[in-house]
Amino acid sequence: MSKYTRNKWRLKLHEIIYEADTPEGKLFDVVLLITILASILLVMLESVNSIDKNFHNFLNISEWIITILFTIEYIARIITVRKPLNYVFSFYGIVDLLSTIPKYISLIFGGVHALAALRALRLLRVFRILKLARYLGASNNLINALKASKAKISVFLFAVIIVAIILGTIMYLVEGEENGFSNIPKSVYWCIVTLTTVGFGDIAPQTPLGQFIASLVMILGYGIIAVPTGIVSAEYTNQNKPIKEKEPINKPENKVTPVQLNSQCCANCLAIKHQDGAQYCHKCGCKLHHD
Amino acid sequence: MSKYTRNKWRLKLHEIIYEADTPEGKLFDVVLLITILASILLVMLESVNSIDKNFHNFLNISEWIITILFTIEYIARIITVRKPLNYVFSFYGIVDLLSTIPKYISLIFGGVHALAALRALRLLRVFRILKLARYLGASNNLINALKASKAKISVFLFAVIIVAIILGTIMYLVEGEENGFSNIPKSVYWCIVTLTTVGFGDIAPQTPLGQFIASLVMILGYGIIAVPTGIVSAEYTNQNKPIKEKEPINKPENKVTPVQLNSQCCANCLAIKHQDGAQYCHKCGCKLHHD
Amino acid sequence: MSKYTRNKWRLKLHEIIYEADTPEGKLFDVVLLITILASILLVMLESVNSIDKNFHNFLNISEWIITILFTIEYIARIITVRKPLNYVFSFYGIVDLLSTIPKYISLIFGGVHALAALRALRLLRVFRILKLARYLGASNNLINALKASKAKISVFLFAVIIVAIILGTIMYLVEGEENGFSNIPKSVYWCIVTLTTVGFGDIAPQTPLGQFIASLVMILGYGIIAVPTGIVSAEYTNQNKPIKEKEPINKPENKVTPVQLNSQCCANCLAIKHQDGAQYCHKCGCKLHHD
Amino acid sequence: MSKYTRNKWRLKLHEIIYEADTPEGKLFDVVLLITILASILLVMLESVNSIDKNFHNFLNISEWIITILFTIEYIARIITVRKPLNYVFSFYGIVDLLSTIPKYISLIFGGVHALAALRALRLLRVFRILKLARYLGASNNLINALKASKAKISVFLFAVIIVAIILGTIMYLVEGEENGFSNIPKSVYWCIVTLTTVGFGDIAPQTPLGQFIASLVMILGYGIIAVPTGIVSAEYTNQNKPIKEKEPINKPENKVTPVQLNSQCCANCLAIKHQDGAQYCHKCGCKLHHD
Repeated sequence: MSKYTRNKWRLKLHEIIYEADTPEGKLFDVVLLITILASILLVMLESVNSIDKNFHNFLNISEWIITILFTIEYIARIITVRKPLNYVFSFYGIVDLLSTIPKYISLIFGGVHALAALRALRLLRVFRILKLARYLGASNNLINALKASKAKISVFLFAVIIVAIILGTIMYLVEGEENGFSNIPKSVYWCIVTLTTVGFGDIAPQTPLGQFIASLVMILGYGIIAVPTGIVSAEYTNQNKPIKEKEPINKPENKVTPVQLNSQCCANCLAIKHQDGAQYCHKCGCKLHHD
Repeated sequence: MSKYTRNKWRLKLHEIIYEADTPEGKLFDVVLLITILASILLVMLESVNSIDKNFHNFLNISEWIITILFTIEYIARIITVRKPLNYVFSFYGIVDLLSTIPKYISLIFGGVHALAALRALRLLRVFRILKLARYLGASNNLINALKASKAKISVFLFAVIIVAIILGTIMYLVEGEENGFSNIPKSVYWCIVTLTTVGFGDIAPQTPLGQFIASLVMILGYGIIAVPTGIVSAEYTNQNKPIKEKEPINKPENKVTPVQLNSQCCANCLAIKHQDGAQYCHKCGCKLHHD
Repeated sequence: MSKYTRNKWRLKLHEIIYEADTPEGKLFDVVLLITILASILLVMLESVNSIDKNFHNFLNISEWIITILFTIEYIARIITVRKPLNYVFSFYGIVDLLSTIPKYISLIFGGVHALAALRALRLLRVFRILKLARYLGASNNLINALKASKAKISVFLFAVIIVAIILGTIMYLVEGEENGFSNIPKSVYWCIVTLTTVGFGDIAPQTPLGQFIASLVMILGYGIIAVPTGIVSAEYTNQNKPIKEKEPINKPENKVTPVQLNSQCCANCLAIKHQDGAQYCHKCGCKLHHD
Repeated sequence: MSKYTRNKWRLKLHEIIYEADTPEGKLFDVVLLITILASILLVMLESVNSIDKNFHNFLNISEWIITILFTIEYIARIITVRKPLNYVFSFYGIVDLLSTIPKYISLIFGGVHALAALRALRLLRVFRILKLARYLGASNNLINALKASKAKISVFLFAVIIVAIILGTIMYLVEGEENGFSNIPKSVYWCIVTLTTVGFGDIAPQTPLGQFIASLVMILGYGIIAVPTGIVSAEYTNQNKPIKEKEPINKPENKVTPVQLNSQCCANCLAIKHQDGAQYCHKCGCKLHHD
């Protein structure tokens, strides 16, 4: 029994912030979600000159309110975890810090609006959107399918890049600088634009031979889009297959009973997804708190 | 036995308007379909200046003919249903009303052609096309597959938007206002244009670094198009699987006998899709009318 | 026994033209293939002003040679078939005629180069390419999959058009004539360009609200491309499934023995795909000719 | 026993260059990979005028270093193979030679920078990227799926080209030279740009009829992208299927035991992919070398 299990207030806060099973935990998550969305909207609106000119004060004050809310959340997260350093240097810990500090930094270098570096730093706040990634947990199947086909997709992308470089070089030789293909990197860029069927049209082949090769590139791009689709589709179908199909028919008792995982989060090691009814953390063995 | 079963004329009309099993019902549906398509064509042609100038009278008269036909249909629908308010406040009831009144409103405020709001109201008639959705009933499998993959597609679209916001912000920093990326919302718009492989080309990166990042965005968009395709493909394959595969082999008597549903529509509660040979409405228990 | 089986020369010709099992038949097919490709190339080159000016005589003579070859082929096809009218009014018969006559018609109205109608007629020769469709026979599975999913693809295309009309109308109201959305048909055209991820960029939304709606259109188009892909993919997988999966496990003797079909063509009714070793036409019962 | 098995130094070198099982072999492959990537980067940078002007000497020297490294590798490959001519005239042998000689040729014709032909020759080095293809071995499944669907994809591409030619000709007649459709080949090019959903926008239909036909082309292109995707997807799913499904259920002993292949390369005939523990080359019977 650690001293944490006796510190009721701290435990309660831990439950609200890190878990989503209680009404208070759900409310916290919803409020956080709205705050994040509002902060991203603020960053986007601030970049629009006409809006920034007319509503500068409103944007500035809203920005400060959100920064203070994030600061409180960040501190609360640190004090309710037993090993704060684990959280601070975790992926979400860094995202939380990066999305909080820019306003403070702009305070230190305040008024120097022209500095490009500072403006870039201010835009770090857009990474707040990554906080939303926490709510994507429901897409396990999707991520598994992507992970399973990672190697094949890499090979595919690598092949696309090789094709783009070779065809881009050929287009550079055929079209030349006078038709916008001013150097090989630009030609390769054009080739990627065409292969992926984006087709901006800022650079377009003018010579008949160039247009013929471009046609080949387009048909190639149109055809090979089938490859990643086929891969993910097949992997995804495999993920979804009932277990029975892969087992001998005369052993139905082998069936795996699916276990219900809840969103409880260990106060010690931050491990999540414990089984319903679990008494101890499956990772560090620390006792889990129940209401 | 309600008084409706004795009112033969009303019942006949109900059958023609709401059901599609009799020759008259089918004829009514086909005529309605053609009228809706003609009315949409009229709205579209009216917006073309050169056509509106030369054929103004023809368009105006055709518009009145269609409005009168829709008015008759609307009234007929109300008087043949036992609970008219149910129909009036149903989705199709509101669409039917909204697609009928604009011409009458233009009569009251006649000659005021400049009113944009009125013209917008007139365009509501385009929603008449939603009536056509009634004829899409054959696509059950498709809709089931889409419904089953709704959650995953939402997650996917959400991920696309997150990526678009982050990459859009980066492009805003890299390209800047002088190259058309004048603010973050516009950059995010460009990023969506590129990720979805649309590629208008009204905004296109000019700096080498911007073109490099754009290449990554394009390849990313080209690659992740595989994800929704894979999802729908897998779900659709699952929908199509024979029932046997999902059941133990030694219990063939478990097979579900598919029931034939017809397009009969209860005169009382408007419930549709009754079983062949059903005597009473499966929803309100009211006796169904048979010829 | 008909008089055709005794006319050896005619039968031989029939075999060469309509069948591909003998060396002469194969040679005929290859020569025909090359002639068709050459004739299409001629039509295309003739439309290029600079080429037509410099090589007018060469193009004209080549055109005459090909027209004469096609005329000979057309006459030969007619005289070797027992029921010539069947051939003349069949799909391939009409294509053969249409691809042969334009040069003769240009002879009658010769020298009148300015007539647009005549020039259009001349271009009919491009339909010669449809003759190549005969060589696509190997793609039965593909065509079956497309046929099986025809109804679903129609529903899908219909839904795309409805979405394009509704969103096109909205874009017309939002962007207005000053931004290129000059009328509803043009707006619907833009919407189709965007939904299908083509994105020419000749019309592009300029207002923030228009760009926001355009983003929705693009993401929608990017998402729903999954639907036809999923359909064809699932149908195609079904087409490829081994027969065993669909049959009860304890009846392996039910298996269908695949029959080898050859390219023999009945001299009477033009029915093709007879079984190896067949003595009589499976369609009209007429005796088949064997070497 | 050949004299090669006694020449230890030569054998060791053969193992390092042609095989990837030993630490030295792996190191060699990684160094080669980096050198190839660096050489491609050099060719690309050299084509950018501003970079070539400022860093001409650096680029020139780097180019010479890489050329010398490639020369050493080329010679080493020749002397360690028993039948050098087999290597020299193999695909990779020719690529290795072509990617090495351009710098030497530029030395002979030195200073004549204006010669386009020479610069083209220099760009042959981009084919060095094909050397990277050796590292793509992991994608067997992918390549098998593509091979299996090769015939169907050809038919599909052929159909796309037929459609493009016919619709391109129609667009040439409808839009005419004044709207950018100046000849049939250009119209066909536009049609391919549109069918593949690339949509540059350098040529775009201006007449209402042209835009209507263009809409059909786009929807067609949007729809038929499903075909290659469906094909590859189905083939790929078939490739991945467990062997059991294709066999009768009561014969589990039929299962094929997968054999582990290593990257050993025969010193005599260059055959690769020998079984683990194999003593002799499976192709020429020559004894394999083991450490």
